[in-house]
Amino acid sequence: MTDHNASNEMWGGRFASGPAAVMEAINASIDFDKTLYAQDIRGSIAHSEMLAKQGIISAEDQRAIAEGLRTIQGEIEAGTFAFSRQLEDIHMNVESRLATLIGPAAGRLHTARSRNDQVAVDFRLWVKDELQRFDHALQGLINAFLGRADEHAATVMPGFTHLQTAQPVTFGHHCMAYVEMFGRDLSRVRDARARLDESPLGAAALAGTGFPIDRHMTAHALGFREPTRNSIDSVSDRDFALEFLSLAAICATHLSRLAEEIVIWSTPQFGFIRLSDAFSTGSSIMPQKKNPDAAELTRAKTGRINGHLIALLTVMKGLPLAYSKDMQEDKEAVFDAAETLDLMIAAMTGMVSDMAIQKEAMARAAGSGYSTATDLADWLVRALGLPFREAHHVTGRAVALAESRKVGLDALTLADLQAIHPGITDAVFDVLTVENSVASRTSFGGTAPDQVRKQIAYWRERLQAV
Amino acid sequence: MTDHNASNEMWGGRFASGPAAVMEAINASIDFDKTLYAQDIRGSIAHSEMLAKQGIISAEDQRAIAEGLRTIQGEIEAGTFAFSRQLEDIHMNVESRLATLIGPAAGRLHTARSRNDQVAVDFRLWVKDELQRFDHALQGLINAFLGRADEHAATVMPGFTHLQTAQPVTFGHHCMAYVEMFGRDLSRVRDARARLDESPLGAAALAGTGFPIDRHMTAHALGFREPTRNSIDSVSDRDFALEFLSLAAICATHLSRLAEEIVIWSTPQFGFIRLSDAFSTGSSIMPQKKNPDAAELTRAKTGRINGHLIALLTVMKGLPLAYSKDMQEDKEAVFDAAETLDLMIAAMTGMVSDMAIQKEAMARAAGSGYSTATDLADWLVRALGLPFREAHHVTGRAVALAESRKVGLDALTLADLQAIHPGITDAVFDVLTVENSVASRTSFGGTAPDQVRKQIAYWRERLQAV
Amino acid sequence: MTDHNASNEMWGGRFASGPAAVMEAINASIDFDKTLYAQDIRGSIAHSEMLAKQGIISAEDQRAIAEGLRTIQGEIEAGTFAFSRQLEDIHMNVESRLATLIGPAAGRLHTARSRNDQVAVDFRLWVKDELQRFDHALQGLINAFLGRADEHAATVMPGFTHLQTAQPVTFGHHCMAYVEMFGRDLSRVRDARARLDESPLGAAALAGTGFPIDRHMTAHALGFREPTRNSIDSVSDRDFALEFLSLAAICATHLSRLAEEIVIWSTPQFGFIRLSDAFSTGSSIMPQKKNPDAAELTRAKTGRINGHLIALLTVMKGLPLAYSKDMQEDKEAVFDAAETLDLMIAAMTGMVSDMAIQKEAMARAAGSGYSTATDLADWLVRALGLPFREAHHVTGRAVALAESRKVGLDALTLADLQAIHPGITDAVFDVLTVENSVASRTSFGGTAPDQVRKQIAYWRERLQAV
Amino acid sequence: MTDHNASNEMWGGRFASGPAAVMEAINASIDFDKTLYAQDIRGSIAHSEMLAKQGIISAEDQRAIAEGLRTIQGEIEAGTFAFSRQLEDIHMNVESRLATLIGPAAGRLHTARSRNDQVAVDFRLWVKDELQRFDHALQGLINAFLGRADEHAATVMPGFTHLQTAQPVTFGHHCMAYVEMFGRDLSRVRDARARLDESPLGAAALAGTGFPIDRHMTAHALGFREPTRNSIDSVSDRDFALEFLSLAAICATHLSRLAEEIVIWSTPQFGFIRLSDAFSTGSSIMPQKKNPDAAELTRAKTGRINGHLIALLTVMKGLPLAYSKDMQEDKEAVFDAAETLDLMIAAMTGMVSDMAIQKEAMARAAGSGYSTATDLADWLVRALGLPFREAHHVTGRAVALAESRKVGLDALTLADLQAIHPGITDAVFDVLTVENSVASRTSFGGTAPDQVRKQIAYWRERLQAV
Repeated sequence: MTDHNASNEMWGGRFASGPAAVMEAINASIDFDKTLYAQDIRGSIAHSEMLAKQGIISAEDQRAIAEGLRTIQGEIEAGTFAFSRQLEDIHMNVESRLATLIGPAAGRLHTARSRNDQVAVDFRLWVKDELQRFDHALQGLINAFLGRADEHAATVMPGFTHLQTAQPVTFGHHCMAYVEMFGRDLSRVRDARARLDESPLGAAALAGTGFPIDRHMTAHALGFREPTRNSIDSVSDRDFALEFLSLAAICATHLSRLAEEIVIWSTPQFGFIRLSDAFSTGSSIMPQKKNPDAAELTRAKTGRINGHLIALLTVMKGLPLAYSKDMQEDKEAVFDAAETLDLMIAAMTGMVSDMAIQKEAMARAAGSGYSTATDLADWLVRALGLPFREAHHVTGRAVALAESRKVGLDALTLADLQAIHPGITDAVFDVLTVENSVASRTSFGGTAPDQVRKQIAYWRERLQAV
Repeated sequence: MTDHNASNEMWGGRFASGPAAVMEAINASIDFDKTLYAQDIRGSIAHSEMLAKQGIISAEDQRAIAEGLRTIQGEIEAGTFAFSRQLEDIHMNVESRLATLIGPAAGRLHTARSRNDQVAVDFRLWVKDELQRFDHALQGLINAFLGRADEHAATVMPGFTHLQTAQPVTFGHHCMAYVEMFGRDLSRVRDARARLDESPLGAAALAGTGFPIDRHMTAHALGFREPTRNSIDSVSDRDFALEFLSLAAICATHLSRLAEEIVIWSTPQFGFIRLSDAFSTGSSIMPQKKNPDAAELTRAKTGRINGHLIALLTVMKGLPLAYSKDMQEDKEAVFDAAETLDLMIAAMTGMVSDMAIQKEAMARAAGSGYSTATDLADWLVRALGLPFREAHHVTGRAVALAESRKVGLDALTLADLQAIHPGITDAVFDVLTVENSVASRTSFGGTAPDQVRKQIAYWRERLQAV
Repeated sequence: MTDHNASNEMWGGRFASGPAAVMEAINASIDFDKTLYAQDIRGSIAHSEMLAKQGIISAEDQRAIAEGLRTIQGEIEAGTFAFSRQLEDIHMNVESRLATLIGPAAGRLHTARSRNDQVAVDFRLWVKDELQRFDHALQGLINAFLGRADEHAATVMPGFTHLQTAQPVTFGHHCMAYVEMFGRDLSRVRDARARLDESPLGAAALAGTGFPIDRHMTAHALGFREPTRNSIDSVSDRDFALEFLSLAAICATHLSRLAEEIVIWSTPQFGFIRLSDAFSTGSSIMPQKKNPDAAELTRAKTGRINGHLIALLTVMKGLPLAYSKDMQEDKEAVFDAAETLDLMIAAMTGMVSDMAIQKEAMARAAGSGYSTATDLADWLVRALGLPFREAHHVTGRAVALAESRKVGLDALTLADLQAIHPGITDAVFDVLTVENSVASRTSFGGTAPDQVRKQIAYWRERLQAV
Repeated sequence: MTDHNASNEMWGGRFASGPAAVMEAINASIDFDKTLYAQDIRGSIAHSEMLAKQGIISAEDQRAIAEGLRTIQGEIEAGTFAFSRQLEDIHMNVESRLATLIGPAAGRLHTARSRNDQVAVDFRLWVKDELQRFDHALQGLINAFLGRADEHAATVMPGFTHLQTAQPVTFGHHCMAYVEMFGRDLSRVRDARARLDESPLGAAALAGTGFPIDRHMTAHALGFREPTRNSIDSVSDRDFALEFLSLAAICATHLSRLAEEIVIWSTPQFGFIRLSDAFSTGSSIMPQKKNPDAAELTRAKTGRINGHLIALLTVMKGLPLAYSKDMQEDKEAVFDAAETLDLMIAAMTGMVSDMAIQKEAMARAAGSGYSTATDLADWLVRALGLPFREAHHVTGRAVALAESRKVGLDALTLADLQAIHPGITDAVFDVLTVENSVASRTSFGGTAPDQVRKQIAYWRERLQAV
């Protein structure tokens, strides 16, 4: 059969029989590595230009190759290219079509190159591009938070620890915590991009080549800072994929925390936010439901990204150098993690921009649960000079009293408080309101609205400086 | 727009605006849950028959529903069904088409049912079917090993510990170790299938229903042992998926060990086996290569299955009852793990059946590395009555002497040995050959060929008894 | 040095230099495998009795060995045994002490045995014991839930999907969902125990032995069903550890879901339960806090168990047969997972028994959020014969109207409802109360109090039947 | 009871009953967080100095506090400090002892601070210190490789792909691949350290504080670049721990690849290296064994580090802000991963420095397996102008012919070769030797000895520039 011969052609004259169906099913990567078509063609054109400049192939052959490759790119983008599993991967699919288009000159393109360095350069280019997209998406998400933070720099809400009301904070301050998280993600993205910015092209199978190639030329043509320094490492390294998955997993973890908060905040019990119809769905049996599906799915997809990370770590564990076929398992994990993360960020950016903040519900909750107890303790330290631990003890008794009466701290009388500690004066009632509590936390990075606005300004400048 | 209205139709009259593109992208599951179409239709037909029998819908409506559903199944299998992402999932795609085909009666099918119990029953049916396929595949793999074990019950090879030659064993015995492993996998498959054999249909959204349904009837119609006992658990449980992934991960681990051995055995340095062309591939730059790609990919895909397991464990962690949308992430992990495992087993079954055993290379290696040192130590215990630890010490000195001369133990002279321990006699040389060593290990489950054959017979009978 | 000689002694006469400090640090396992001392001694006594019965050692030596081993067990339990890292592991620590106590006879104990089968039998015995403890602990937890379910079979609470109020259920029914989950865990524990119930003792290093041992005798003496059937598998298998970690991870996932619910339920916003002081803690700075620490830690420790599972799966991936030192990493993972799970179950059993159910808060919440909308839709189907999808649509409009007026469904007038669908009659108001809704869900496994009580009875009988 | 009162003291006057035993067991962290004692005391002294400078506490109190803390540090380091589980954690253990030592002034230390920011600063300091140790250890390992690379820049060995002989390389070049890997690890360590270099001290419970503290002062006193910018993020962030575990997992993956190679290379079949007695161990039953235990354990411990990474990712998934007790699970994972990685690096540094390279065995293997087939193909391109694909095909036929005769490529006659392609000349035999093959690969980063030496020089300079 033709297909079968095509396959034999590819592997040289050595194989007496074609691969069995199971072999094709397990071995062929074209179903997913066709994602790399643009990078593959970019790499091949750069390689051919270098070969021509170095006199390894003729200028004429180079022109034919480049033209053929551009034709193929057009065919793929137009959806008219016939991918073949028999031809295993994107490299062989492109090369075989090139041979059809331009004849024997196609065979010169693979000079001083191997599939091992070819796939390494394709995949690095793809991950580098993805890191760029990720960078933009994170900036979009950060900007969404900066917008809400600005709007709500003074909107009080309960600050939680252990999901129990702890101290009042502002919603703007809470938003800025996420800005810090996604800001760190952004910085990890940039570090990773700088680290992978080396071109493996020219490492050939694993040992380098005897052809007089110029690896700096191809590196620069492809936008890399420099070529890699060791040919064995160049074809056996997948650190850039592992690092991508690691930073994706950390970012996904941040998104999952936000998603959990959205789920909790939109319960009728909390009622801190209302989701728009655009980002919630109904139920097939319960018509009244307004479910935070996008938040739940974002929360869940963290598992998927963690799974991909552990998958690739497991694949790479204990692999002897240089290239092993195991490494073909690198791509689906990274492709799916990238697409998933893009979607998670988009969904969260949409929800953050879109959700309606229920200021009254937040304010009401901020005042409940004895949230200003620390303010009372701090007042005892400041005004009466009590050691903190003693102030803590006095406050505990005041809370216990208020709780037994089912009232707030500010509903205790001065007499009540003086029965607990005789030094307490009327001035204490100033610190027991939520607004005063928030306004008082002026330490650097604290929740006082002025501090929040300072940090918004800092981040706006930092993002513009990029 | 029509699509938009379709969507509104589905969720009732409540939503003023349709879902945004990102929402559709994150929310729609039709791209993967269409895999469940046959189970979905089976479940719906069973449900409709029960509704009719219980007088909840008319016999006429039931007939129309069942006929419509069979038409839809035909359309899907013929590839003419138009799946719509706007309609989110397989359930809505089918139901919407049913409405087109049979009109308002379609709307009666969803009586006393919710998507929550519907998806649970579909997915359980799918996993149950998959466990059946897995059961057969494992039997095929075990049979492949039994065949090779039979053929090579007396073929000597080195037994390794720490990948160092330890003691001679037979290749048949080595094969039977894998029979035990995959035999345990088989037993886990059957335990899991028995545990999931309960029908959640009729749990409705989460609380059960007030319609007078007969859950035992639908359970039996769908081939389940019985209905589940708690409606909340029925829609929030995904244990069957977690247990499937767990046993898949353990089985994949076994396959990875076999794959590693195939990779090592087929190096020129070991040369224990030769792979056929059907299960190896060439290199684009090194024409002489015969690479064990299928083994490497099998080894690698273990990572993928571990990844899916950890993904779903992470998804389910900390989910409050009952159904949360997070659980939609269960399917892709299970589908891909199942397909991957099928492929891994097929590849390994093929390679095991197909690989050519290099008896001479195995025998040569079995005799090297002082592999009969333990036999010497055991002889010293048996023949001379030495405590084992002293015998061990004497043997160590004999090995050190042989090693310093770069010869085997059996090339030492009696005088050499007597210089180490005066009690040693000529009889010792009987235990220093590889064949005698193997034949002597007659303890139950030991490597003596007779023992190996006994275990082959045991397993053949056990498999037939299924 | 003495220590150094001790080490040489152990490995025979071959090593010219002792292990470096780093080698000792990475290699010695005594710090954790001393956990296995009782199993090690049990195994050795059984082995010695078999050796004596088979005439491989003398009865006199056997008595000395057994007595010596019992002395050592006493020393370890009294805390007077001096463990040595130089002696690497529990086996060598015990054997070396035995030599001191009884002299050369100690050296005969290791006849027809290796550390490879010795550690396999020790570890299997330990895991088998742990599965027994786990079985009891799960029964305790299930009983705690049965108690609460009985007490609250008719206590209404909101049933949630997407953490949004969906339909009313009873707290007893919710408890019974956990009974089902932990019941499946229990069944997995028992399957795993049956599967590991084979004794590897007598497999020796990997090939079996030429001594005329009786493996069935030692298997029965140690309480195993039978001996393992393949000596290579016996020393290279760690399925029992992987399966233990798998089922522990699934159980931990269940515990994490319960823990999450406890955290959410004990917020002031939900207020469904109050924790006792025994199971909550205070804050160093916020005296009013009553934090659900035990629930949070239980939720978190799921990660730890998942981590141990993935750790051992990764360790075992791609290990060639038979024993490799990598497998020494099996124990800490399993020991810590077992201890962690014991603690998690104890904490949850305590909290479930101890928490105060806030019936009024539950009832109030059950009535909010249009939780009886499905009951309305079902009524439209039953009473008016509407197809479900149309009923759903009508209900959606009713909810939208009630929502726009910020009232419950039952606060709409008949005229309001008839404006939406003219067929609605006064009878509809019967189904709009929470109590009637719950009582109506009488399908098998539904939330109607009678159904809940039936399932409690079922589980009580099933547990007693154990 | 006294203990009970101690506990009440700590939490203020609110708790009527002490924690149950299970609660203490699950809640107390002192068993592992005492590791942080030095960081805790450092942080407290810096905090007290700042409080005094800002006039929040008196200079006299500050001196008493600092003196007391130094006394406690002395007690801990002398082993005389009595840690109490009743006092939960390192912070309370230290504070309680301080109260005993200096009286009420101790109570002033906790002013404007919470355990939430205290533990965050302690743990960050610890991780920062560990990254410094890790930095040094990696430099040591890189230096070990540079030494071996220098020594063996021209030592030929087979380069493998798929563990099949591919092309000859030098052992020095192979070593330099690891230098690149561990060099990337080093760069990740430094990026992570720069990112965590912010002090959370002063964030207090979560909202900041109203006391006029100076967070820049404490940040600088503790060696941090600056204070964190958001108080909520400061106490709820564990990115630094996740990033530490991520980079540890990638580094461990590298170590596992090296370990696998050591295991394979030290088999009798490969025989590329010999391990010293210092880094191998014997067998209890097979006296001749020289097992690469340290390499196997290093390979295995990768699983442990992956496990810790997945554990903490799972813990942090979906945690609402700010602090939750779940986060207490961060420390054991990081502590154990750090200790494990230290040990793995030490073991590998030792083995790399110590192993004896078997040049003859490497050279022999380098020449087998048609390793110069690519050189033949390249020659056909260069000398005869064949397109690479055609050259590949011709080479395949030459290899097939040689294989059928069981000889090397260089044992074919010119006539043999010309029968395959008539253009081949005598000059071809120059490229068929291993030495010429290696020497010819002069592309940047290739395996030619001169290229290897250039890269050694590059790395030596780069390390010194640190």
